[in-house]
Formats: sequence, C-alpha cells, structure tokens
Amino acid sequence: MAMFAVSRRLSISGGSAIGALRYATTTVVKPLPTSFREERDTFGPILVPYDKLWGAQTQRSLQNFDIGGDRERMPEPIIRAFGILKRCAAKVNMEYGLDPMIAKAIMQAAQEVAEGKLNDHFPLVVWQTGSGTQSNMNANEVIANRAAEILGHKRGEKVVHPNDHVNRSQSSNDTFPTVMHIAAAMEINSRLIPNLKHLHTSLNSKSVEFKDIVKIGRTHTQDATPLTLRQKFSGYSTQVKYGIDRVSCTLPRIYQLAQGGTAVGTGLNTKKGFDVKIAAAVAEETNLPFVTAENKFEALAAHDAFVETSGALNTIAASLMKIANDIRLLGSGPRCACKAPILFHNSFNLFPF
Amino acid sequence: MAMFAVSRRLSISGGSAIGALRYATTTVVKPLPTSFREERDTFGPILVPYDKLWGAQTQRSLQNFDIGGDRERMPEPIIRAFGILKRCAAKVNMEYGLDPMIAKAIMQAAQEVAEGKLNDHFPLVVWQTGSGTQSNMNANEVIANRAAEILGHKRGEKVVHPNDHVNRSQSSNDTFPTVMHIAAAMEINSRLIPNLKHLHTSLNSKSVEFKDIVKIGRTHTQDATPLTLRQKFSGYSTQVKYGIDRVSCTLPRIYQLAQGGTAVGTGLNTKKGFDVKIAAAVAEETNLPFVTAENKFEALAAHDAFVETSGALNTIAASLMKIANDIRLLGSGPRCACKAPILFHNSFNLFPF
Amino acid sequence: MAMFAVSRRLSISGGSAIGALRYATTTVVKPLPTSFREERDTFGPILVPYDKLWGAQTQRSLQNFDIGGDRERMPEPIIRAFGILKRCAAKVNMEYGLDPMIAKAIMQAAQEVAEGKLNDHFPLVVWQTGSGTQSNMNANEVIANRAAEILGHKRGEKVVHPNDHVNRSQSSNDTFPTVMHIAAAMEINSRLIPNLKHLHTSLNSKSVEFKDIVKIGRTHTQDATPLTLRQKFSGYSTQVKYGIDRVSCTLPRIYQLAQGGTAVGTGLNTKKGFDVKIAAAVAEETNLPFVTAENKFEALAAHDAFVETSGALNTIAASLMKIANDIRLLGSGPRCACKAPILFHNSFNLFPF
Amino acid sequence: MAMFAVSRRLSISGGSAIGALRYATTTVVKPLPTSFREERDTFGPILVPYDKLWGAQTQRSLQNFDIGGDRERMPEPIIRAFGILKRCAAKVNMEYGLDPMIAKAIMQAAQEVAEGKLNDHFPLVVWQTGSGTQSNMNANEVIANRAAEILGHKRGEKVVHPNDHVNRSQSSNDTFPTVMHIAAAMEINSRLIPNLKHLHTSLNSKSVEFKDIVKIGRTHTQDATPLTLRQKFSGYSTQVKYGIDRVSCTLPRIYQLAQGGTAVGTGLNTKKGFDVKIAAAVAEETNLPFVTAENKFEALAAHDAFVETSGALNTIAASLMKIANDIRLLGSGPRCACKAPILFHNSFNLFPF
Repeated sequence: MAMFAVSRRLSISGGSAIGALRYATTTVVKPLPTSFREERDTFGPILVPYDKLWGAQTQRSLQNFDIGGDRERMPEPIIRAFGILKRCAAKVNMEYGLDPMIAKAIMQAAQEVAEGKLNDHFPLVVWQTGSGTQSNMNANEVIANRAAEILGHKRGEKVVHPNDHVNRSQSSNDTFPTVMHIAAAMEINSRLIPNLKHLHTSLNSKSVEFKDIVKIGRTHTQDATPLTLRQKFSGYSTQVKYGIDRVSCTLPRIYQLAQGGTAVGTGLNTKKGFDVKIAAAVAEETNLPFVTAENKFEALAAHDAFVETSGALNTIAASLMKIANDIRLLGSGPRCACKAPILFHNSFNLFPF
Repeated sequence: MAMFAVSRRLSISGGSAIGALRYATTTVVKPLPTSFREERDTFGPILVPYDKLWGAQTQRSLQNFDIGGDRERMPEPIIRAFGILKRCAAKVNMEYGLDPMIAKAIMQAAQEVAEGKLNDHFPLVVWQTGSGTQSNMNANEVIANRAAEILGHKRGEKVVHPNDHVNRSQSSNDTFPTVMHIAAAMEINSRLIPNLKHLHTSLNSKSVEFKDIVKIGRTHTQDATPLTLRQKFSGYSTQVKYGIDRVSCTLPRIYQLAQGGTAVGTGLNTKKGFDVKIAAAVAEETNLPFVTAENKFEALAAHDAFVETSGALNTIAASLMKIANDIRLLGSGPRCACKAPILFHNSFNLFPF
Repeated sequence: MAMFAVSRRLSISGGSAIGALRYATTTVVKPLPTSFREERDTFGPILVPYDKLWGAQTQRSLQNFDIGGDRERMPEPIIRAFGILKRCAAKVNMEYGLDPMIAKAIMQAAQEVAEGKLNDHFPLVVWQTGSGTQSNMNANEVIANRAAEILGHKRGEKVVHPNDHVNRSQSSNDTFPTVMHIAAAMEINSRLIPNLKHLHTSLNSKSVEFKDIVKIGRTHTQDATPLTLRQKFSGYSTQVKYGIDRVSCTLPRIYQLAQGGTAVGTGLNTKKGFDVKIAAAVAEETNLPFVTAENKFEALAAHDAFVETSGALNTIAASLMKIANDIRLLGSGPRCACKAPILFHNSFNLFPF
Repeated sequence: MAMFAVSRRLSISGGSAIGALRYATTTVVKPLPTSFREERDTFGPILVPYDKLWGAQTQRSLQNFDIGGDRERMPEPIIRAFGILKRCAAKVNMEYGLDPMIAKAIMQAAQEVAEGKLNDHFPLVVWQTGSGTQSNMNANEVIANRAAEILGHKRGEKVVHPNDHVNRSQSSNDTFPTVMHIAAAMEINSRLIPNLKHLHTSLNSKSVEFKDIVKIGRTHTQDATPLTLRQKFSGYSTQVKYGIDRVSCTLPRIYQLAQGGTAVGTGLNTKKGFDVKIAAAVAEETNLPFVTAENKFEALAAHDAFVETSGALNTIAASLMKIANDIRLLGSGPRCACKAPILFHNSFNLFPF
C-alpha cells in the first residue's frame, strides 16, 4: 500500500551529510484513500481506491510508472478523444452484434468521458509503453465500470467488460493513433483557428486605427525610408491570415484515422467495413471530415501527419514571435537622450524598428 | 472579481456552429475564495484572498498573466532558493543596520519558504517580465507578511516591508540570476549526482553478475566478434561515471552568484562588500562553495553558465538514452524463428545488439 | 594585394611552442591572378582580376568577408534565380522606358547567368549583410559588364550600369527574397518532386515484388502478428506519396514574390504596376504560377513561407529516415544463433522489425 | 567508366515539359583522367586514376557513395589525424616486430599525410558506413602506395600492404574514434583556444579604451541606470575567458583514445600493451596529453565526449552571438529624431542597449 500512497520520486538513496540536502525535497505523503475495492486482470488481484472508476491495468501503470506527476499527465484532449472514439466504437459494434443494452450504456459512459466529466478517473502520465496501451485500458476500464453502474451493477464486476465490450475490434495500436488525430483536429478547429481569426481581426483594426501614424522604416536594425504604422500592421495581419492557411492545408492528413488496422495494420480481429463505419461515426460526432486512412500500415507505423502539422504550428509560432518582438522593440525607447518623440506623432513613443 | 475567479484562457470569441465545438473545453469557474483583504502598491489597492500571504504585485501578475496554469508554474526549487537567499540577505543586512527584530523575523519566515512550507503562497507561472520581477516580489511579499505575523502584526500592514526590508540592497536583476544558480546547484548536488552514483553502483553490480554471459558483439547493427555482458555493462557504468565528472566540472561557474550587481551590474543602491558577504552566507547555509561573481556585468547580462551546464546534462541524457535503447534491443527478440537462445546462456533471451 | 591573395583564416596570433601547432593548418597562398583592371564605386577605385566580370562591390565583399570558403559559397540555385529575375526586370523595365538596346543586352547576359554559364563570376559566400546586398550587386555587376561586352564595350566602363540599368526599380530588400522564392520553387519542382515520384514508383514495384513474402510483424521492437512484405512496403510508398502532397500544399505561399516592394514594402522608387508585371514575367519564364505578393510588408519583413516549406521538407526527411532505418533493421541479423531464416522465405534473411 | 566520370546526382528520371526544367542543373561531365592503373581487393580488380595514390576500396566508395560533392568531403583535420595515427601505429608496430624498413617508409608517408601534402588523395565524402571504414582504408591505401614509392616500388604492387602493414593491430572501429579525438583536440588547442585568447585580449583593450564613455544601461530592452562602456566590455571579455575554461574542462575525456579496442572493445587481434604505447606515441607526436581510454567498450560504443565538448562549443557560440548582437544594437540608431548623441560622448552614436 505504501508503494501507492507515497511518492518516492524525490528521495535519494542513503543519507548524505552535505548541507545542500538540508533543504532537499523530502518524501511527500499523499492522503491515503479511505477504502479500496479489488480489481483483477491476468496478473491477478490488485487494490484500487474505492471512489475511482479505473481498474487493474490502470492501477498497475500508476504504481509502475510513478514518474513526472501532474505536470506530465496525459493531456485532457486525449482523454476526451478516447470518450468520442469509444462512444463511436460501441455504436458501430452494435451493428456487428454487440448487445444493444450494453452498447448504449457504453455510449452514455463514453459521452461523459468526452465531456470531461470523468477527468479525475484518468490519472496516468505520458510515460507508458510506446503504444499508449495503458491510456487505452484506462479508458476501457473507466467506461466499463461506469457503464456497469448505469446498468445498476457494481464496479469491478465486469458485467460490462473493458476488453470484450469496450475495446471490441480495437487494439491500442490503432486506438492511440486515432485519438491523437481526433484530439489534434479538435484542438485546431475549436481553439487554435478561432483564436487566430480573433487575432487577425484585432490586428486589422489596429492597422486601420494607425493609418495616420508615420514612422521611420527600419531594415536590418538601421533607419530606412518611412512608412505608416498601418502598413506595418497590415504585414502582421497577413502573417496571421497565412498561418490559418498553413495549418488548414495540413488537416487532410490529420483527418485520416488509423482505426481498423488493429495490431499491425492488417485489421486482424476486426470486422470487414469496421474501419469505414467508425471513421464515419467519428465524423458525424465531431462534425469534422474524418475518413478512414487509405493505408493502415502507414497510419500505424508512421506519425508523419503530426510532424507535418507541427511544422505548420512552428511557422505560426515564428510569426507570432516576430510580431511580438517587433512590438517590444517599438516600445523599447531609448528615451534618455531624445528630445522629440521618435515617431512623427505625439501620442506615444515608438522606437522605429 | 470575475477577472480573478474565472479562467478565460480556453474560451473563444463568438459562437461557432461546428460540431467540434460541442466538446470544446468550456469556461472553468474556479471556487471563489470566501473572503479578501486589501493590499496596496503604487498602482493602488487590490483585493487578495484572505488566507494567502502574497501581496499586491503578486495578485496583479496572477490576473495579468493568466497563462499556462499548474503545468507552467514557477518550479519549486526556485521558490525554495528564494527562501535561502532572502534569509541570507536579512542576515547580511543586519550587519549593515537592519533592525535585528525585523531581520530575525524575516530570517524565520524565509526559512519556512526554504523548507517548502509556504509553497501554496507562490501561485505565479513562468510567464513574467524578463527579469522575474514578479517572483522576486512574490517572495518579498510572502516573507514580509509572514514576518509581520511572527511579530504579532497583521498581513498587509507592512510593518515588515517587502521592498524596504526584505528586498533591501537587492534588485530582481540580481536576485533572479542568483536563485537560478542556487536552485541549479542544489538540485544537481542533492538529487542528480546522488542518483547517478546509485545508478553507477547498480550497473557495476550487474556487470559483475553478468561476468560469465558471453554474447555476440554487434557493430553498426551487424554481428561482430563476441564479448561478455560484463564488458558491455562496464561500458555503461563508465558512461555514467563520466557523466558525474561532466556535470561536476561545470559547477565552478554555477557557484558564482550575481547578487550585489543590482540593476545593471554596477551595484548601485547596495553596500560595499554586500556581494561577498551574501555569497559567503549562501555558501554557509547550503554547504556548497558559492562565491560572488568576479564580474557582475557578465553575471547579470549573460546566462552562459546555464547553457554550459545544460550541455553537460544533455550529454548525460544522451548516455542514458543509449544505455536504455541497447537494453531495449537486448530484449527485443525476435523469438519467432530462433531455435536456440541467441545468447550462449540459457537464462534469458538477449538479442545481441 | 596581399589581403586579396592570401587567405589568413587559419593563421593564429603569436607563436606557440605546443606540439599541436606543428601540424596546424598554415597560411595558404592562392595563385595570384596575372592581371587586374580598376573598378570603382562610391568608396573609390579597387583592383579586380582582369578575367572576372564582377565589379567593385563584389570585390570589396570578397576582401571584407573572407569567411567560410568554398563550402559556404552562395548556392548555385540562388545565382541562377538572379539570372532569371534580372532578365525579367530588364524586359519589364523596357516597357517603362529603358533603352531597348541596353535592355536586350541585359536580357542576354542574364540568360547566361540563369543557365549557369557565368558561375565562376559569383565568388561570394553566404556571409553578407542581412539583405544579401552583395549578391544582388554581384549579379548587377556581372550582368552589366557582360552586357557591355555584348554591346562591344569594355568591362568597367559602365556603358551598362549595374545600378541604373540592371537594378532599376529594384532594391536588395526585394530582390533577395524574390530569388529565394524562385530558387526554392524551381528546386522543388524540377528536382525534389520528380525524384520523390521516382522513389514512389520504385517502392510500389518492390511492394508488388514482395507480395508473397510473409514476415513476422513487429510493434515497439517486439514480435507481433504476421504481415506480408508487400503490406510493409505499401506503407512506405504511401509515406512518400503524402510527402509530395505535403510540400506541394506549401507552394502557393512560395509562389508569392516580394519584387516591387523595394526598400521597406512601400514600393518607393519603383513604378506602378511593376510588381504585377515582373511576377507575370517570372511565371512565364519558369512556367511556374508565380504571382506578386498581396502584402509587400509581409513579403519583405517575414520569411514565414520558408519556415513553412522547411517543415514539410523536414516531414519528408523524417519519412525517409524511418524507411531507411526499417530496412537497415531488416538486414541486421542476428545470424549467429538462428538456424532458420527469420522470414518464412528462403531468399534473404530479413530481421523482422 | 562512365559511372566514375559522370556525376549524375542532379539528373532526374524522364523528360518533363514544365518550364522550371529549362534551367534545371544538368548532367555535369567531369574531366576524364587520362590514364588508369588496376587496383585489387577481395571484390576483384578495379581501375583507379593513375596519378592518385588511393586503392581499390577508396575507388569503390567513390563510385558507390556519389553523394554530396566537395561541400561534404571528409574534413581535412580528420585526414591529418589519420596521418598522425598511422605514423604512431607503424612506430609501435616496429616494437612488436614489423619490418623496420617497411615501418620507416610508412612513418615517412604518414608524415606527409599529417602535413596535408597528400590531401588530393583523400576524395571521400562523409557518407560512409557507420564506422568510417572507407576513410580508414583510404588512409591505409594512400600510405601503403606512397611508402612503396619511397622504397622504390610501384603503386598497386602491395609491397607495403594497406591491411597487413599500415592497419596492423587496428580496426576501423577503433581508428575512427581515435582520429576524431585527435582531430578535435588539435583543432581546439591549435586554433580555437589561441583565437579565443586573441579575442579576449582585444576585448580587454577595448574595455580600457572605453573607460570614460558613460552610456545608459539597459535591462530587458528598456532604459536603466547608467554604466561605462568599459564595464560593458569587461562583461564580454569575462564571457570569452570563461569560454576557454569551459572547453578546456571537457578535454580530459577527449584526450582518451579508443585505439587498442579493435572491433568491439576486447582488443582481439591486437597486442598486449599496444593501446598504452600508441596513446603515448600520439601524445609525444602532438605534445598533447593523450592517454589510452580506461574502458574500451565505452570508448568504442559511445561518443559522449563529443556530445560534451559540443555543449561547451555551443556555449561559446551563444556568448559570441550575445556580444555580436549587443554591438549590432549599439550601432543601430535610430538617428532619425535624436537631436543629441545618445551616448554622453561625442565620438560615435551608440544606441544604449
């Protein structure tokens, strides 16, 4: 039990006399959960905090990979994407013969995961096996236990089974790439692009507001010919507009889902047509144009789509850094020996960069 | 008030009809503190949660830089180093005339910061001005209020003043580089090196244990002449031993403290000798050989010592990655078509890398 | 003269007794050109090797930036792109009143640069001012002298003037970004994409050839369920196909040319419509869909288009590295203890990765 | 023959109608050597240009790895280090029974390589097998042929044998790491450190020269309290001084030589004591404190010493970049609206950074 309750990450072996240790971060005792239930997997029984929905495999990962803490927890958008995927999987599995009562309970439980209502039941960090098996099992276990509750049963009874029901026709090798794609597409569409559009509008407004401010142009940190601040800001807003184009044109490859490839891309242990149907279900659920990946071997073994999108995000970051640094220089003075405002405008002192 | 209580980082402007938004992270309402007190700085009054020790400048930073959340909070070793520094500053300032009653209360309060007892009163993230002014003020404010309490006064009364007493003879331009050096030196000496020594001992033990295991050598992922697993592991333990040497030989420059340079390195507003005395006090407190930086202009304007140490840490990381990848390959099979164990040893199947 | 003729980059100051110096690279004396002519710019006269077409500004850069040598010379595709741009500029300038006899001589000389015939007259390295002024002047000087020769005049006489004629309506601030875009677009279209298509075809052929080879699947360097080598290679060819899509979808922003923005984007000193006409001329000359940049302030001050394309090229490189590493592992054995080929196929020994 | 004489790197498959191809770099025909001799290795005979000293293995690498061209050729310091190593190997091998006549001829030939006199006979690029076997064989072949000439024999006759004599008791697996260490140590000691010392002296002189120039201090690109330019430059010279310390303290691990480990670190096929003797010989030859690596498995399988030194060089680069950027800002104006020089000094206009 102590192994679970005590974080030993910061402890060191042996006692040292050096003074630096006097202030060393010491063993932190987390509050012990008041009660436990027994969960079980192929390794045998294991105790899980009574108030948590997760099962044996999640608990083992928690104990075996006690690394990184809160700062390195699996990001919330991945958890939510698991909710969406598992909901869609239950829906499609129903078409292939999964008991509708169980399927519907899974869908309801998965919906709660998708909405972030069960975040406290996803305690794992990013340090896992290469395939993200533990987070996939965390989702399967939480949804199975919650679905069982919905059906009036107890946690741990496996009336709804994590593997046989929730993970049916799936493998961590295809679910994890799939949730990465779903999470990335949703974050880009629901957070990044709307915020870039907002910034673009703001910069355009500033451009209009600054139309009569003439400033000295600067090339290579030297004075050059004059221009208006409107012109300067029109360049910034164009950078942001192109940023939206940039990330958008990488999305067709993010919209391709690996689901249906199972372990190595052959689709062993899944049903014919499962891949197309589940991509369609995810598309309907998210209102984003997801499709099944045309080649599952590529979709499982390579993650090039993220490298590509990362290149576009990096370009946007470089644009924003350039804009921010320019504005920082604009307000950087020097005021010490300048009798006149440097701009031909009396409202504020802009250093002509 | 709403500005404080509500995190608006995730909200987006305008309503969008796209389905992706259905699951978008929505505005999170943090629990409102039940009561507040008024703190005050040159900008005027501001409300601070009653149960927190911080003051006006910390509160403003919290509201103005509502970025990143828990994952991007200023690391604990920096907070603790501020405790050490402020304790030493009070001690030295007492020699230069600071009221001993106030100085001792500051020392006691700073000690609590150094021990991590007041971590909950350091809420700021790493997104600050370039000089870390806000974290310096967070330390000054928390220590001032706590020292006032120790002296029987109320928070916010400024009986012990954040600037005039706690920050006396200091500037954020010299305190922040100083605490970075203190924190790095302590983490390296009390956590990194002891753990590397432990790993070195373990690898040596394994080397002895493996002395009779002969394996095929591998060069450039091809079979080569045989060697023992003992020899292989002796290479690993040598890598770790050199890692300790590597980081150790960068420490002389980490042990140089900027304290005493104040705003630009000239030591304006501090006392003659303050720099040498405070470095000696920090050295005594931590039992590490800190000295005052021989050139304060370098110590403030450049942070080369961290670039250097980072290069050594990177080398250690590269060593550990090589060792881990080798061991991963050793256990990687293939088992599918091999009739005999690949090692000339029957206890476990090691892939000869 | 010695300054020109002798490369002193490797010399060191003072004599040292240490043995390492015995083998130190010593001062290299380049063969002296046999004769010189005088060229002249606003700094005054300067000697230039008689057999070279460049002028005073190129010569000064050669002497002032004696850095890097052959390995760091301005890449040939940039030189050729200057040929294309200057040819188009002369053509458009003729419409705006440039003497047709001079314009046509410039066009002919520039054509020689575009064809790589005058590469020996472009000696400069990449170490220049931020705007690439020296390479722009190198092009102007070489083309002016060559055009003068075509018209029956001598080098250095400035019958065709580097600035007034060849560089008319242009600035290094808009020509250099323009030639970077031309060079990148041409290299991608005439070298990268055809070669990727060739690789894609080859991988597809291999996929067909390998259709009956069954191998053990591997996930995370462990044995998994079997697949055919055809399937494996179909993943590779899909990666390459997507690589072509990736770089192609960044090209619309590479096809935007800064030309016409002159010094800071305002188009001062150029003619109305020059920007649109010159982009059309470059498009016609290269048969690539170049257009004038919609916002010249963005086009001059930011180089985001290259950051973006670099991200796509990085993705292609990551794909090729993955394919190459897989194939390397396939042939990596071990052969030492395996009685049967690991593949279920007797033609070659593939390690099942 | 055509395979050797023609560089096909730039050609593309198939004809394309697009205009971009009109200017595409076309097949470059290198001048054909006028005559050849036959060299031979285990693959059989191969033609080598008559005037070159290299043999069959170098020639094969040249044809098989026609990649990168001059810009990617194996750096000269590596070639020279091979000269030093092979000279020392012959000397030590003489102690172990190598015919003194052959040994002395090898030593003389290797000396010519060490002095850079045979650079034209080292045509290979960096694209080789992981162990650098081809460059090791290039050295063996050139030295064998040159030694044969010294003894009055013809090239290709193998009177002095590349493997049996020049490479005796060595493997590319230990020679290549050894020459990397020798080359790095010599470049650092004979070029980098003397140049840093020169820079340090110059910055110190400037510091003295600038002692009466008062300028406004700047923190975080804002005006701060004043300081002298002397103080500013004293910071720079301190950065450079520490840079010398930084790289120097990584050298003890660069001075450890892998030579004697042969293929996998066990020293198979070499003589007892060879490792210690050859390190001593290299130390004597270079007057640098080389020693044999205490653990050959580490010395062969890891290249951590270069990662470490690279971190120190990176720190120096970061220092120089900071200094250069500061000086660039100092001279960056703005002059446009400033009636007085910004510095309190009338000799030049320094922007107060």
